[in-house]
Formats: sequence, structure tokens, C-alpha cells
Amino acid sequence: MKLHDFDPAPNAQRVRVFMAEKGLEIPIVEVKVRDGVMFEEPYRSMNPFAVVPFLELDDGTCIGESVSICRYLEDLHPTPSLMGRDPKERALIDMWNRRIELDGYLPTMHALRNADPAFQGRVVPGTRNDLVQFPEIVERGKDMLLILLERLEAQLADNRFIAGEAFSIADITGYFLIRLGVRLDFPIPDDRPNVARWYEDVAARPSTRA
Amino acid sequence: MKLHDFDPAPNAQRVRVFMAEKGLEIPIVEVKVRDGVMFEEPYRSMNPFAVVPFLELDDGTCIGESVSICRYLEDLHPTPSLMGRDPKERALIDMWNRRIELDGYLPTMHALRNADPAFQGRVVPGTRNDLVQFPEIVERGKDMLLILLERLEAQLADNRFIAGEAFSIADITGYFLIRLGVRLDFPIPDDRPNVARWYEDVAARPSTRA
Repeated sequence: MKLHDFDPAPNAQRVRVFMAEKGLEIPIVEVKVRDGVMFEEPYRSMNPFAVVPFLELDDGTCIGESVSICRYLEDLHPTPSLMGRDPKERALIDMWNRRIELDGYLPTMHALRNADPAFQGRVVPGTRNDLVQFPEIVERGKDMLLILLERLEAQLADNRFIAGEAFSIADITGYFLIRLGVRLDFPIPDDRPNVARWYEDVAARPSTRA
Repeated sequence: MKLHDFDPAPNAQRVRVFMAEKGLEIPIVEVKVRDGVMFEEPYRSMNPFAVVPFLELDDGTCIGESVSICRYLEDLHPTPSLMGRDPKERALIDMWNRRIELDGYLPTMHALRNADPAFQGRVVPGTRNDLVQFPEIVERGKDMLLILLERLEAQLADNRFIAGEAFSIADITGYFLIRLGVRLDFPIPDDRPNVARWYEDVAARPSTRA
């Protein structure tokens, strides 16, 4: 098994933190993403969606999508659990992870790709084309991040971690959501003390330096 | 167990097709979404993200997010499998389902909410506010749908269904992606014959009339 990775990418970092929380060591192949190798063979055939990270199994199967890679690793190494130990826990952690991703992480990621000149020519992940950057997508990403942080504040007022009392994959996604926000000059607002307390807790974990 | 549902919503329909494929019958409570009841008690406390569908368990736990509801039902009723029977199958189906959602279904859903005057005042799912509709989000949604359909065409040239030879949750998500595209006057392009063949196959299944 090998993890094809690109160190600076938030999605790659999510998988590495997940692995560190489980104490897993998997050989890492650093992909020269900035040289465009994802659009050339052998990557083109292995990973036609052209994004990192992806996991290459010993039989040649390639698993893309950071959460799907984590799901595979959780299935093989269920302890310590990061995605739930029974059907109800699994559903609730999945729900929270999706809420963070769909309502925050993705809109903020699209905002960053539409804001930072470094993403010109690759505004949509895994593509090379002439799609323009839209300031409206930046604005809407910030709108959605603020709405999500208001809802997370309520959840974290009553819970140590996002999905309850146990650390889970939803906290890893949430940690990288906050870091994406910072890259947009949009840190945690002052009126979200529980989000700030939770973020400091997560940032203090050794896994976040993986 | 009760499913709180709103018949016309694509996410509600996704769960109903999933249940029909498994032969599951769960009591359904129709929520008067258009009257704003999601923002009032008891819904506000049960489901603070204010979107349908959500599943209420007998112990009062509420599971939101259509895919998380499906995951719970799959855990309780693994046969027939719609999310994979072993770690590798589960990861690959999850990967394809995410690709359809993240690269197509969500951008197209956001496009529709920014295009259709009926969504004014609720442009972001589960909110009521004065966020404006942005034509740029409509344009980018169509851009992303076209990119995804090009990639799906290649996958469906070699596979009967999206994740391989077996029907899965990825096909359900894909079916509703195409239907969202039609609502944007963006049907399957003529140069995507394998997508069209697959869509007809899925549309012919009795479950899509659930």
C-alpha cells in the first residue's frame, strides 16, 4: 500500500492526521503536483480525477477522495475509532463530518481557489482550463463559513468535540476548515468562544504535526 | 423509527429510492417545509441544520444528511448491498458517490438555488436570510457539471454502473444529479452516449418511482 500525496494540500494533510491518530505508517510517494504530472501517465490512468491524495493498494486498485481513504483505513484498523463503533455512532460522525465539509470546508476551499491568484488556470480541483475566478464565489464561501461557525458554536457549547465527547474525523475536517478560513483572512470570530476553545484543543494534539 | 421528509426535495427522494432498493418501509412524516416549520420547535431542537430529510430513532436521536441516513440503514440491513460488502468495495463506492456529490450534485444544487426565483430568501440550504442569488454560481455549477459528465462518460464506457458492475448508492446520487441538470435546462449532452444509456437503465428501475 502506498499513499500518493502532496504535502501542502489540506486534503493530504487530513489523511496524514487521521493516520497519525491511529498510529499508522504507510509509505508516502510525494507527487509533483505543481509540475502537472497528475495529467500525465501513469497518474492519468491511475487517478483520472487528478487530485491528491490517493491510496494505491498492492493489487493496483486506487482509492481517491480523502474521506474514502480514511474509511478504508478505519475498516482495516478500527481502533482507536475515528468514524464510530456502532451504526448510530457511525451515522452521527458521518453526519457531522458531512456538515463541516458540505457547509464549510468545500465552500471555503472554492472561495480560496477563486481568491488566490496562484490558483488561476486550476480554479476547479483536478482540472487545467481557462475558467475565471469569480469574487462572488469568494463572498458566498465566507457567508457559508459564518453560518456554519454559528451552528458549530451551539454544538460545541454542549460537547467537547464536534460529534460528541470523543475526537473523530469530523474534528480533523473542522480543524482544516478553520485553517482554510485563516488563509482567506477569515479567522474564528471573537463571538465564537467555544469554537476557539475546541480549535486550540485540536491544534494541541501531536497528530496535527503529522 | 420515523423519516421526516419533504416529498419534492431531491435529498429526500435519494433516501426513498435507497429504501425502495432495499425493500425497507419506514413510517414517513411529511414536513411542511414551505411553511417554515423547520425553524420552529420541535424541529429547531431536533434538527438545528434545518434541512430534510432526517431520521428520528426510537431513542430520540436524529440523524440528518441523506448519505448518513443511508449509511445507518445499510449497517442495519446490509443486503442487498448498496454501499459495498468489504473494505475495498466500500471505499470505491464511497469514492464514486463523493465524486458525484462534490463535483456535480452540490455545484448543480447551488446553481439551481441561485437561478430559480423560488429560492430567493433561502439560497443556502437550511437558512432564511437575505443572501442574494449570484449568476456566477449558476455558471460555475454548469461548468462543473460538464467536467464531471466528461469523466463519467469515460467511466461508464467500461462499466455498467458508476462504481462498477453492481448498482450502488453512487447511481442513486448520479440519477438525481442528471435530474437537477434538467431543472437547469442542462440535459445530458449528445456526446455522452454512455451516460445516457446508464441514465435510462437507472430510470427504468421501479425504485425511482418510490
